[in-house]
Amino acid sequence: LTSKLPDVGTSIFSVMSQLAAECGAINLAQGFPDYDPPVALTEALVRHARTSGHHQYAPMPGLLRLREAISHKTAALYGVPAPNPDTEITVTSGATEALYAVLAAVVRPGDEVIVLEPAYDLYGPAIRLQGGIPVYVPLLAPDFRPDWNRVAAALSPRTRLLMINTPHNPSGAVLTAQDMATLAGLLDTTATLVLSDEVYEHMVFDGQPHYSALQHPELAERSFVLSSFGKTYHATGWKVGYCIAPPTLTAEVRRVHQFLTFAVSTPAQHALADVLAEAEQYQTLPTFYQHKRDLFTELLRNSRFDLLPAQGAYFQLARYHRISSENDLAFAQRLTRESGVAVIPVSAFYHDSHDQGLIRFCFAKRDETLQLAAERLCQV
Amino acid sequence: LTSKLPDVGTSIFSVMSQLAAECGAINLAQGFPDYDPPVALTEALVRHARTSGHHQYAPMPGLLRLREAISHKTAALYGVPAPNPDTEITVTSGATEALYAVLAAVVRPGDEVIVLEPAYDLYGPAIRLQGGIPVYVPLLAPDFRPDWNRVAAALSPRTRLLMINTPHNPSGAVLTAQDMATLAGLLDTTATLVLSDEVYEHMVFDGQPHYSALQHPELAERSFVLSSFGKTYHATGWKVGYCIAPPTLTAEVRRVHQFLTFAVSTPAQHALADVLAEAEQYQTLPTFYQHKRDLFTELLRNSRFDLLPAQGAYFQLARYHRISSENDLAFAQRLTRESGVAVIPVSAFYHDSHDQGLIRFCFAKRDETLQLAAERLCQV
Ligand SMILES: CSCCC(=O)C(=O)O
Ligand SMILES: CSCCC(=O)C(=O)O
Repeated sequence: LTSKLPDVGTSIFSVMSQLAAECGAINLAQGFPDYDPPVALTEALVRHARTSGHHQYAPMPGLLRLREAISHKTAALYGVPAPNPDTEITVTSGATEALYAVLAAVVRPGDEVIVLEPAYDLYGPAIRLQGGIPVYVPLLAPDFRPDWNRVAAALSPRTRLLMINTPHNPSGAVLTAQDMATLAGLLDTTATLVLSDEVYEHMVFDGQPHYSALQHPELAERSFVLSSFGKTYHATGWKVGYCIAPPTLTAEVRRVHQFLTFAVSTPAQHALADVLAEAEQYQTLPTFYQHKRDLFTELLRNSRFDLLPAQGAYFQLARYHRISSENDLAFAQRLTRESGVAVIPVSAFYHDSHDQGLIRFCFAKRDETLQLAAERLCQV
Repeated sequence: LTSKLPDVGTSIFSVMSQLAAECGAINLAQGFPDYDPPVALTEALVRHARTSGHHQYAPMPGLLRLREAISHKTAALYGVPAPNPDTEITVTSGATEALYAVLAAVVRPGDEVIVLEPAYDLYGPAIRLQGGIPVYVPLLAPDFRPDWNRVAAALSPRTRLLMINTPHNPSGAVLTAQDMATLAGLLDTTATLVLSDEVYEHMVFDGQPHYSALQHPELAERSFVLSSFGKTYHATGWKVGYCIAPPTLTAEVRRVHQFLTFAVSTPAQHALADVLAEAEQYQTLPTFYQHKRDLFTELLRNSRFDLLPAQGAYFQLARYHRISSENDLAFAQRLTRESGVAVIPVSAFYHDSHDQGLIRFCFAKRDETLQLAAERLCQV
């Protein structure tokens, strides 16, 4: 059996989490909190676990009451017309499934897909599994902002889809209203669709807003916008996300979703619908995470790492001082083993493992964890 | 946007469940129980919902303790060497995700995949999304047993994969040890892989055993074997299934699984690991479902439906008496609307909607539900 993805190994997030466990290292590698979801959410799961009739298939596009709650939240948060739960919202097994479903639904063999790099490790392989051709446009350190002229130059009549991610993993860079307008202008006369991965939508710092692709009407018309309850509710292990898109695009996503997973956990969807309707967890997140970013950067001030600006998401990039020919991966592994702090090499976000002396810390950790990690890191 | 699956509508299971809801009909269409999972399982979910640290990403291949429990169960049940949890077992978002992952992992554009028809509605479209070519071999009423000569004739050097399903949805037909040996012989000199969909493994009647592809050593070497906790634990809405395959095949499934959904609900996996290790729910299922089959067939004895043999799974096929040119779909819709009992037209299990005057009832329902449905059906 020859592999369809011979050059793709196990996801770096699995690899580093496993190494962290083996070494007893503090895991600042894979992006997940070391605290629990709000008690309102876990108790809602308890309630629905005990509710007769809440254990069979949810409707294929998601529980109606959850889709309605998503619709209300989206309208209130972004000041946009409420997306239609029947035709514009699909609940998926995490944003990961939504990403894969969008690619499987629209990318045909030979289609080009523009990916701004560094990019989440699944983008490239998932495009290639559809027979698509990833076309990479670099985002440059230290601020990783898109150069729209380079994006324009990468567009071709074969460009089926353009993928954006704001706030950006791993850099935290945030797209502005102006960026979205520029992008909409670039695509105006094309048939290119947009996948906007906005899973860190509620983690933008320093009083800046998150600007969603949904807020630019022309862009929204051609966009699949993805979000993740895992990120917003500190529940990455629940695997519930969603996709908002106009009816014709949603119809295609659902055509695939019904064969990929069919539906998402019924008790989990009920629990999320309860808290999404009642509380406003997400309003507390910018402050919550800005505090963590500020604490972590302060704690590392006397370390030998140079920290890059981090405007959003829950990641902090850092430049390390290279020893001889050691690359990002080797450094990340050595740091895990020798200093007891696991991190992600930024080279893992490049299709060609492009190496620039950068690693990524996840700061979605308790203050004590960040403190302990920083102590270790300051000794490097 | 032109669809990649222009001829594929919304899954018949969604369509009929929605019609049932609209008409207030008893839903014997989509396959799911109208009773709850064992209390041991729902209380296990309660426990893990309240366990700190059980809400973040599970390991990509599944929780180790769940894979270990699956390994033990498989060895005990089928008298086979215990599958290696590290290299041979992958937990997926229902058997649906496992099916899709196998197809995405091994089917290349132009590859042929043999499908025995009638077949579950996702097989064909999911093959086509990989650029594969479904090659259909008919199973004939009333017993829907494979004609292995026809299967042999359908094999070609391009046959990448052959899909079997035992017990069979929708007919309940069960493959025997002899069938598996014949199939193994047919494939002996080929590079064709096998996907064995065994999600109804615990529902075989009249004292017959379920014979798994895992039990035939040469077949097991080339097989992906799928199962589903949703079926075994009356928890179709939890969306947890798994795939057992030799290490080289498992490696390919995981390469795709990590990009399709990455991981499966952590609290649900913990809960299932608890009950799988402790109880033996599945041993009670043959008797439980045979009783339901026997009750339902007895209740329909004086109806105008001719019931076909049902050896396994939780479905009963029936021949209805055609009125003029009404097809299976039209009949199923009329039955739902006029008699208040929703069913699945068997034509939905054929790529060309082949119509033979058959409908499918799901008898995974409380005895009272079956009674009420039968009263209505006897008036047709
Ligand atoms: C699905 S594991 C990866 C989690 C994540 O988003 C990250 O670490 O970047
Ligand atoms: C995923 S909905 C379909 C359930 C089922 O297996 C069936 O009804 O055949």
